Amino acid sequence: MTDYIEGRRPLIEALRTEVPLQYILMADNVKRDSLIGDIERKARQRNIEIRKVPKKKLDDMSERGSHQGVMAATKPFEYVGTRDITNAAAVYAEEHNGRALVVILDHITDAGNLGAIARSAEAVGASGIIIPGKRAASVTAATYKSSAGAISHMPVAKVANLNDSIERLKKEGFWVAAASEQVDGMIWDTNLKGKIALVMGNENEGVSRLVLDNCDFTCALPMEGKVGSLNVAQAFTACAYEWLRQNF
Amino acid sequence: MTDYIEGRRPLIEALRTEVPLQYILMADNVKRDSLIGDIERKARQRNIEIRKVPKKKLDDMSERGSHQGVMAATKPFEYVGTRDITNAAAVYAEEHNGRALVVILDHITDAGNLGAIARSAEAVGASGIIIPGKRAASVTAATYKSSAGAISHMPVAKVANLNDSIERLKKEGFWVAAASEQVDGMIWDTNLKGKIALVMGNENEGVSRLVLDNCDFTCALPMEGKVGSLNVAQAFTACAYEWLRQNF
Repeated sequence: MTDYIEGRRPLIEALRTEVPLQYILMADNVKRDSLIGDIERKARQRNIEIRKVPKKKLDDMSERGSHQGVMAATKPFEYVGTRDITNAAAVYAEEHNGRALVVILDHITDAGNLGAIARSAEAVGASGIIIPGKRAASVTAATYKSSAGAISHMPVAKVANLNDSIERLKKEGFWVAAASEQVDGMIWDTNLKGKIALVMGNENEGVSRLVLDNCDFTCALPMEGKVGSLNVAQAFTACAYEWLRQNF
Repeated sequence: MTDYIEGRRPLIEALRTEVPLQYILMADNVKRDSLIGDIERKARQRNIEIRKVPKKKLDDMSERGSHQGVMAATKPFEYVGTRDITNAAAVYAEEHNGRALVVILDHITDAGNLGAIARSAEAVGASGIIIPGKRAASVTAATYKSSAGAISHMPVAKVANLNDSIERLKKEGFWVAAASEQVDGMIWDTNLKGKIALVMGNENEGVSRLVLDNCDFTCALPMEGKVGSLNVAQAFTACAYEWLRQNF
């Protein structure tokens, strides 16, 4: 299914963060201003066709009535399979003293969190992210924005059953760790050497029982504050850098 | 200066994340629905007065014309001084084997980032955050939301000159570290033991030259990806947990 981006500023943001676009539709009577000029310039740089259409067509297509004379058709995100990620991880491990990181998101629902996790995952050299096909955030234009474009460089697999992916990762030599937060947590005493699949849980409920039962161990960040809880993307970043530290 | 929160959902969010409120104004002819019921219930729980006023008054006060029959007056955030933070840090260090963390934000401009940093700072047991008075994000209702309420538990000093605060921290026995991102960065080889003031730079430009010159050393997170950069709140979280690890 093709998603459309509506409006001048959202489209400029999409061009800036390199959301893959099929084409741009522009009303043939569009009121020209600096934003329209910016859109034309950025589209030319990225070689994206601008099709002039009657404003009526945009009115008909628009879902939110906020097209301001421009809409863009996005290319569907190209998901990979779990096997593509384990293959990439094997190559990465060969070249990096045996270390590799795969991220498993157990029903993260916020698109901003998905993007933020992708950005940090890219920064530490993770080989891919595995997400469930249902009841979870998918890759959308919002993900490009919140990942600052990093999602373009991060393989993402969308799977029917996370536990099947976990089984495959185990067969490929991964240790599967579930992140958690605990007052007496001690991630630093947890062995994160080598090939690790790190499972991050849903924003409200954490890692689900069914998935947790399949993990080899938990990896707990200590909470030292009075109210103490971390955003899931922050928790991921802290865990991912600890993995990198132990393997550097 | 009193800030006002306008509209039903923003007000419910403010009540949920415990934004300190002076009172709520409600139009005397407001159309009752479940959101209004929720506002009344949460306000009663938190002992916040609801004043019935003519709708005309809200129309006059509203800046964005989106009050939907309710507005709330926030209490101004109570900033502390740098000395309050160093005093709190001294007490904390006494009780925690000599460790303390103070966060210095060198012109972070995004309110979401300020809140996210506050949330992680609270989770690792930081003693306070120092921000500049100008050209930087201050504590607003948005900060309560992005910090998930943690900002209520985090002392924040708003200062005219960051370098004056840095000098005071040095006199109180702090080492001042500037966070940076580098391909060859090795935060793990940096000694972060004891009392550390961690300086995080502006989203686009990093730590400014004038502030950097006053720092004792930099603390660099390795970037292993292809595009590699971290969101400032993510970078803070990784650095803060490394400080905690070295001092635990």
